[in-house]
Amino acid sequence: MNRRAWVFDAYGTLFDVRSVLAHCEAAFAGHGEAITTLWRARQLEYSWLRSLMGNYKDFWQLTEDGLRYTCQALGLSASSGQIEHIMHSYLTISPFQDTVANLEKLAATGCSLSILSNGTPTMLKAAVTNAGLDGSLAHIISVDEVKIYKPHPSVYRLACERLALAKEEISFVSSNGWDAAGAKAFGFRVYWLNRAGQPVEELEARPDKVITSLAELLSEDI
Amino acid sequence: MNRRAWVFDAYGTLFDVRSVLAHCEAAFAGHGEAITTLWRARQLEYSWLRSLMGNYKDFWQLTEDGLRYTCQALGLSASSGQIEHIMHSYLTISPFQDTVANLEKLAATGCSLSILSNGTPTMLKAAVTNAGLDGSLAHIISVDEVKIYKPHPSVYRLACERLALAKEEISFVSSNGWDAAGAKAFGFRVYWLNRAGQPVEELEARPDKVITSLAELLSEDI
Repeated sequence: MNRRAWVFDAYGTLFDVRSVLAHCEAAFAGHGEAITTLWRARQLEYSWLRSLMGNYKDFWQLTEDGLRYTCQALGLSASSGQIEHIMHSYLTISPFQDTVANLEKLAATGCSLSILSNGTPTMLKAAVTNAGLDGSLAHIISVDEVKIYKPHPSVYRLACERLALAKEEISFVSSNGWDAAGAKAFGFRVYWLNRAGQPVEELEARPDKVITSLAELLSEDI
Repeated sequence: MNRRAWVFDAYGTLFDVRSVLAHCEAAFAGHGEAITTLWRARQLEYSWLRSLMGNYKDFWQLTEDGLRYTCQALGLSASSGQIEHIMHSYLTISPFQDTVANLEKLAATGCSLSILSNGTPTMLKAAVTNAGLDGSLAHIISVDEVKIYKPHPSVYRLACERLALAKEEISFVSSNGWDAAGAKAFGFRVYWLNRAGQPVEELEARPDKVITSLAELLSEDI
């Protein structure tokens, strides 16, 4: 093993996108579950579609677009104040229960930890600080530098450039099966954190290892 | 208006992707609805993801990959015979009730009609013949020529090349909101056939006109 760095996806991997449900429910009682599910789906779809159309818009704006679509699709009339309030939940998004302690332990092994995410620098900084993860992370890398979203190879290449490492020296961790496939196709060693007990995506590139908790990374050889 | 040709999306626009439900239900009683919904979602996601990864696979194979994933995700053990049987439903996919008569009438106005679709030439030819649409269509154009999926601009450009027309001379009709957005961003005049009563996708490029049945095209000026 020639691992020099761990690189983590953020949303769905370190941070629980479903933790925004409380804000959605507070704004639209009885609709929190439906909003959260459709909103996340549209957020991802818009990132893929805009990347293909060559029409980049940053993840904050795109996430807000997804929320507006979602409210309309569910027949909910959302004021700009309500949209703003729900959007704010992304700045204080909760880490998963296994995130903070395990990242601290992993950082203590001496291997550098970084984030590579679709999120804007502002969104990521806010979430990292809110979770108390600043001290564990060497780099917070946003696709905003390359203006295209995962799983385009430019995004994974950006991590190599920022860390000054070869792709083979980076171990990438994501809970999103499609992100794991994109990272593997690029050439990282990939750990798929299968939080939801889903099948491997049928995208050819299969993860090197499937784990169910970040704690499992602590027993990996450096 | 300088319309020289009508170009139609196929799946969801002329052909009802939900008509495969009966085959799914026959193979897995009680699961037809769930299979059909998840299968269509994965089929589209894989087309976008593979396009971004630069890892093209044709729509027949990609549709089968989506079906395999779907069966696994729903905990259904599908034999290769069952997969083959369900896949076959795509070759005999039903046109919508408003498809055949309206395309015949539209063709009689003298403006050429063509299909521009993600489907493979074999899949499209089978569906068109099965529906009895051969006589109404001038060209059946497949993304397989350019090896990337909608909404990448190369796909829409392919229609201009094959029809030897400028983008402004083509009117494009799709029921898929994201396809309508991609075609509009490229520069076609776009009719969004909003069969499901959904909001316009928040992708900036908005359709020129929203219709609810193909019959409405008959009253458009040439």
